[in-house]
Amino acid sequence: MNIRSIGTIHAPWTSLRNMPIRPKGDEGTESSVELLAEFADGLTDLAGFNHSDLLSLFHKAPRTQMSVIPFMETVKHGVFSTRSPLWSTHIGLSIIRLVSVKKNTSKGNGVDILDGTPLLDVKSWRERFDRVIDPRNCWMKSSADDVAAKRSDSRFI
Amino acid sequence: MNIRSIGTIHAPWTSLRNMPIRPKGDEGTESSVELLAEFADGLTDLAGFNHSDLLSLFHKAPRTQMSVIPFMETVKHGVFSTRSPLWSTHIGLSIIRLVSVKKNTSKGNGVDILDGTPLLDVKSWRERFDRVIDPRNCWMKSSADDVAAKRSDSRFI
Repeated sequence: MNIRSIGTIHAPWTSLRNMPIRPKGDEGTESSVELLAEFADGLTDLAGFNHSDLLSLFHKAPRTQMSVIPFMETVKHGVFSTRSPLWSTHIGLSIIRLVSVKKNTSKGNGVDILDGTPLLDVKSWRERFDRVIDPRNCWMKSSADDVAAKRSDSRFI
Repeated sequence: MNIRSIGTIHAPWTSLRNMPIRPKGDEGTESSVELLAEFADGLTDLAGFNHSDLLSLFHKAPRTQMSVIPFMETVKHGVFSTRSPLWSTHIGLSIIRLVSVKKNTSKGNGVDILDGTPLLDVKSWRERFDRVIDPRNCWMKSSADDVAAKRSDSRFI
């Protein structure tokens, strides 16, 4: 199927190495999401939420690999149980803290996305639907501090 | 960009009318996600989590509209602040409770997706990264019971 990018994500990260591995590991860094002008009206009311999901295309990670060692791990796991970019469709999902929304641009705080990444979608994050009450987290047992201190390396390039 | 579906979502819902509006509004209904055989190994370890994000293509909702009245609302909002399928890229995101994972198929409980919908991605849901601690929810103030009782209508067709 043919999917058209609806905008571009701007961030300070210009290399896949040494990036934050999640937005929560990157508080304080400004990012912005610039939609094509034709989609500006769709951002109305987004500022009433304080987080949004960004769907993006991992345009610099075209490889596909079904078994990967995630950044916070030492052993291999099935790629669909991780957030490695080596998914076959290479679509990324990041939950970004919203700072402001103006015209066709939303600004955020904390970003784990490469500068210039094509934007596929923006969705509001809603407590009622998007929080799991009784999560089971398998191998993902790292502390928030561990995740914040971790930076990417070349394993997914 | 050209994106290839990685599988198909099976559910009892064969019409866009009278469907649950979110997985949380549909506990008890079985769904299954069938990946192409070549991606089966990617599901290893997914059963260690109890919820997964499904990214899908709203293949029956090809319209684009920047201002919509969501199912739980009476007034219009910008489409990117909602989960209406009338997004320009028509990519859906549903958080599904996992029941079992076997070979190339994962089974779930609760589904708001039309039978036969193309699957774009599967991602594990992790408390540490995917829960917002201090959410602001704008107009989305409906109770869990309200959402569970609500069914879709033809507004997004």
